[in-house]
Amino acid sequence: SVNPDLASERQTASFSEEKLTALLDGGTEQTRIRRAVVEAIESDPVFSRENQYFQTQNERYEAAVRKAVHLQKKMHEMGWTENGPESKYIYRALSGDVAFLLHHVFVRSISVLGSDKQIAKWIPLATQHKLIGSYAQTELGHGTYLQGLETTAVFDTATQEFILNTPKISAMKWWPGDMGRSATHTVVFAQLYIHGKCYGIHPFIVQIRSLQDHSLCPGITAGDIGPKMNFEHIDNGYLLLKNVRIPRQNMLSKFCEVRPDGTYVRQGPQKINYFTMTTVRLSLISDEVLTPLMKACTIAIRYSVVRRQSKLKPEEQEAKILDYQTQQEKLLPQLAAAYAFHFINDYLQELFNRGYREIQRKNFDMLPELHALSSGFKAVITQHCTAGVEICLRACGGHGYSLLSGLPSLYTKILASCIYEGENTILLLQTARFLIKCCMAASAGQPVPPSVTYLAAVKHGKCPAKNKLDFLSPDVYTEAYQHVAVRLTSSTAAKLQDLIQSGVEKHDAWNQCTVQLVQAAKAHCHYIAVKNFAETVEELETKAGIQKIMKHLCDLFALHGIFSNTGAFLHDGYTSAAQMDMVTASYLDLLAVIRKDAVPLVDAFDFTDKSLNSALGSYDGQVYQRLYEWAQKSPTNQMSPAYERYLKPLLHNTLSKL
Amino acid sequence: SVNPDLASERQTASFSEEKLTALLDGGTEQTRIRRAVVEAIESDPVFSRENQYFQTQNERYEAAVRKAVHLQKKMHEMGWTENGPESKYIYRALSGDVAFLLHHVFVRSISVLGSDKQIAKWIPLATQHKLIGSYAQTELGHGTYLQGLETTAVFDTATQEFILNTPKISAMKWWPGDMGRSATHTVVFAQLYIHGKCYGIHPFIVQIRSLQDHSLCPGITAGDIGPKMNFEHIDNGYLLLKNVRIPRQNMLSKFCEVRPDGTYVRQGPQKINYFTMTTVRLSLISDEVLTPLMKACTIAIRYSVVRRQSKLKPEEQEAKILDYQTQQEKLLPQLAAAYAFHFINDYLQELFNRGYREIQRKNFDMLPELHALSSGFKAVITQHCTAGVEICLRACGGHGYSLLSGLPSLYTKILASCIYEGENTILLLQTARFLIKCCMAASAGQPVPPSVTYLAAVKHGKCPAKNKLDFLSPDVYTEAYQHVAVRLTSSTAAKLQDLIQSGVEKHDAWNQCTVQLVQAAKAHCHYIAVKNFAETVEELETKAGIQKIMKHLCDLFALHGIFSNTGAFLHDGYTSAAQMDMVTASYLDLLAVIRKDAVPLVDAFDFTDKSLNSALGSYDGQVYQRLYEWAQKSPTNQMSPAYERYLKPLLHNTLSKL
Repeated sequence: SVNPDLASERQTASFSEEKLTALLDGGTEQTRIRRAVVEAIESDPVFSRENQYFQTQNERYEAAVRKAVHLQKKMHEMGWTENGPESKYIYRALSGDVAFLLHHVFVRSISVLGSDKQIAKWIPLATQHKLIGSYAQTELGHGTYLQGLETTAVFDTATQEFILNTPKISAMKWWPGDMGRSATHTVVFAQLYIHGKCYGIHPFIVQIRSLQDHSLCPGITAGDIGPKMNFEHIDNGYLLLKNVRIPRQNMLSKFCEVRPDGTYVRQGPQKINYFTMTTVRLSLISDEVLTPLMKACTIAIRYSVVRRQSKLKPEEQEAKILDYQTQQEKLLPQLAAAYAFHFINDYLQELFNRGYREIQRKNFDMLPELHALSSGFKAVITQHCTAGVEICLRACGGHGYSLLSGLPSLYTKILASCIYEGENTILLLQTARFLIKCCMAASAGQPVPPSVTYLAAVKHGKCPAKNKLDFLSPDVYTEAYQHVAVRLTSSTAAKLQDLIQSGVEKHDAWNQCTVQLVQAAKAHCHYIAVKNFAETVEELETKAGIQKIMKHLCDLFALHGIFSNTGAFLHDGYTSAAQMDMVTASYLDLLAVIRKDAVPLVDAFDFTDKSLNSALGSYDGQVYQRLYEWAQKSPTNQMSPAYERYLKPLLHNTLSKL
Repeated sequence: SVNPDLASERQTASFSEEKLTALLDGGTEQTRIRRAVVEAIESDPVFSRENQYFQTQNERYEAAVRKAVHLQKKMHEMGWTENGPESKYIYRALSGDVAFLLHHVFVRSISVLGSDKQIAKWIPLATQHKLIGSYAQTELGHGTYLQGLETTAVFDTATQEFILNTPKISAMKWWPGDMGRSATHTVVFAQLYIHGKCYGIHPFIVQIRSLQDHSLCPGITAGDIGPKMNFEHIDNGYLLLKNVRIPRQNMLSKFCEVRPDGTYVRQGPQKINYFTMTTVRLSLISDEVLTPLMKACTIAIRYSVVRRQSKLKPEEQEAKILDYQTQQEKLLPQLAAAYAFHFINDYLQELFNRGYREIQRKNFDMLPELHALSSGFKAVITQHCTAGVEICLRACGGHGYSLLSGLPSLYTKILASCIYEGENTILLLQTARFLIKCCMAASAGQPVPPSVTYLAAVKHGKCPAKNKLDFLSPDVYTEAYQHVAVRLTSSTAAKLQDLIQSGVEKHDAWNQCTVQLVQAAKAHCHYIAVKNFAETVEELETKAGIQKIMKHLCDLFALHGIFSNTGAFLHDGYTSAAQMDMVTASYLDLLAVIRKDAVPLVDAFDFTDKSLNSALGSYDGQVYQRLYEWAQKSPTNQMSPAYERYLKPLLHNTLSKL
């Protein structure tokens, strides 16, 4: 039975939830396929996450391996293939709680970087799981700066082998997933030396464990890096190489080859490597970042209409906490952001697909723009969604802090996305470098890529809004965002020029501008996200109430961004103080409007109870009952030796006198 | 041997570290006592936290109980007493990793709320650990709104007993520490009923477990609430009461009493209860909030001078990451905030002591101001420090995400401080209510408490700064903060009045202003923190370089606040855009200045390696070696059954063909 406080929220939806779900999925057929995958996975007890919050790191790892092995069987049974329409839903249905994710990266890196011969040899072995692969790039002492990697691979002409070594502790491979306990092979990135000369970083296939008994191969030291804030199910590992010899054929050689006599041959452009990173950054946005925020919104919003606390009016019963303006102000902007980023993800995917087609035709013109957009949005979206999940957690008070709410594990996992696949500050500075270049080019009258043409078309002037309703016009707020992005980019470009002209060295000048460069890169992405949301709303069908509610969310996303960052808009007087008060008024009005549809808006994400795995967020809203039931299953309710060992002697010393 | 990259940072300190440590401790004698306590605790293997990051929740609980019991013996051995000068350092030296913390709250609540007779009976039993106490206020369905608690205590005149019941699941006590597995007694807050009439919430002493065999008493259901984001060592519990009878004498009756015939007698003022909460809120700031931020700063800043990544100039070696402006911008404002809040904590403690003396003399005039300040600062400091710890964690990249860095556990623990002892938004609204009242009173010419007299003395005008150096004048920035606090309070008061005058009901009008009321309360606290820091610097001795470096930190704290919230200062034109550019310039300059002393400034916090328990933050800076050593001890490096069960069958299916 559904909690009546939750049921009543669903009776007044202003739109068709099922149509919104289909819109998010990309069509009703996609919804059908997704639901079938979810049903198949969730009905299989091997994939259960029921006891997840009670398990140790070792138990989580074992379960993830079991699931990964079972998944092969399941896919065969169900007729699912790696490239079939179901595949994109499998990982989501498992909530990522499965091993061998790096095995896929191993496969991808061989496909992208390997020669045809290497692909023919290794890919079948990998796809049939005759080996388990990993990907060893990061070292203890090196993450973002790839040129600084210290592992060496020296070519020995006599034996036609590469000799791999970890020359010092900071060169130890550290973090690779699946490597701590599972992998038999890995792709190792190392500095290539031939006849004493260094040729830079190259990838090598190295076997690390025996296929007979899984013991470590000669010269290999490897293990698990220990406990982390999340990812207990993954055996992130370390790897030390001591005179490990591999055949010449094990250097991945699509683009670079070492001939038997030691001649080094490079083929094809180096910048294509960017594109691999671009792919990874884009692919993580949906599964690793948007889904957790959508789940957190679902949990926190459902809980906030079931939880009653304190009174709005003395004579009434205690109010649903979502009726408090402060609670709306916490949760509803996160909901709006989830939709905004869903749509920008669609936009980026389409751009990426276009870029990919061009690259197939050997046209690499789009690479810089794709790199800048994927870097900037990876940073902005992971940052925003991580903050959003934390807000959802805190908005649920004490119960949000219990692991049983599901929110802590969403938070501790999404937090990692700000760090992996490019630390966010580094990525934003790459976007900024692109913006500065384009800003210079534009002001010199040279052509720039489409997403930054606005930098050239600088318009001065003031925000035209005359009353608070004007701020519900997408033209008005999109223009304001554009103005800020242009101002921050051009003023930082000017500062950089001034510093250089005043004699500061180029690198110092750049460093002295980086705080402001990061602001400019964020403003650029924020502008594009707002513009894209507004354009998406424009194109939606006007029936079924969907366009209307999406328009409200778009307005909220835009006005929340202004309200949270008023200084950027007030700075040069583009927006006046009186206009800022209008923004505030419209923003607060919108909260009350969207609050009415808040539950249907999260229901449309269509998460099952099993996928939420939350005592607070289930579809029926029976929060207190579920918290109590789940708590009783906790291992902390088993008999503890602490009583006999410590408490009894303490209390019994003087028991007779009580 | 100290890592040379860390050693070099210590050679150029602009001040005497030892003198700064003494200043923080409140004198050299305090430093001596603190160090003696730390030495005694850390040299005792029972108190070791060496394997903490590898332990399960059950293991953590058992260790915490063992430590709590052992601590009694230790205190006796060392001659430490509950009220001795050492006591305030014991908890810090244990890093809070000990059981029976709620036992102290049990004792305190009896001391404050119990009659002399009750104190005489229960306090000796508790202090000699003839029982273990807990404190059961929060329920599954009720946290912040005490009047809504649903547990009932019905007086039975016939037997002279109270009958306690949990009428429904939302009334179950939930969260009390030490109650899940340890406590024998607890103070239960329940609605008192006499002859069918409800007299509101009162506290009752209830025995929940047998002193013989620790089994649950008749009518009691209790257990552990399961896994949480942190506090694994604490057995937060649940409690269900079914017709539990306790003698009339077990209602704590300093202020309220039920006579044998059922007559209800209230003595003394009710608002004194506020004062107990004020005490708890203030006492948690130092141990639970400031210490973690100081530890996080120590870890992140030491790591940032040892970690080298990428190059500032192409020809040089890789740079220390603290030399990047973006890294300084992350960490140094957190360091400045740690100092700012240390000093405001001193200010609040002093104010509290003064208030306490007045209350002893039955003068309750200071209560509203103390309540407003303790609520506001609890919220602002916990929020700021929690965000600060997260920034430190993320600033350490992947290594910060490993539990071995110590940062994840600091974060997941400090996060709870935003929720417990008053959820922050609720607390800020209480401060705001006080501000609005005082604002009204001041504008009506009535006297207001000292901390808010500035609300009456509204000064219009503009910020007088003419160049970036003017923003290093405390008068200039303190005035700016004051201006913003006045503006936000008075404009929200005006909005509230307008709404009410336009016919909106008072409670609705309040709710519609809460987002802005929260802003006003934060601005008030921020202003007082800046003003207090500036005044503290003014009073410091001018020798040993301490005043100079504290002045830099005060400037940074103030300017970072303006830089992060420019809109508030620009809004009404008090600060112009040109002046804001000066703020930015001065702020960025300060980062480079303070960076030079960053390591000595964290060294002065004087944390031992054992208390930091961090592979990244140790005094010698041997980061990579320690990460590797610690990881090898992880239980995830023991033999896993996953290989035999899942991996071997998978790989061996086709082993012969490889």
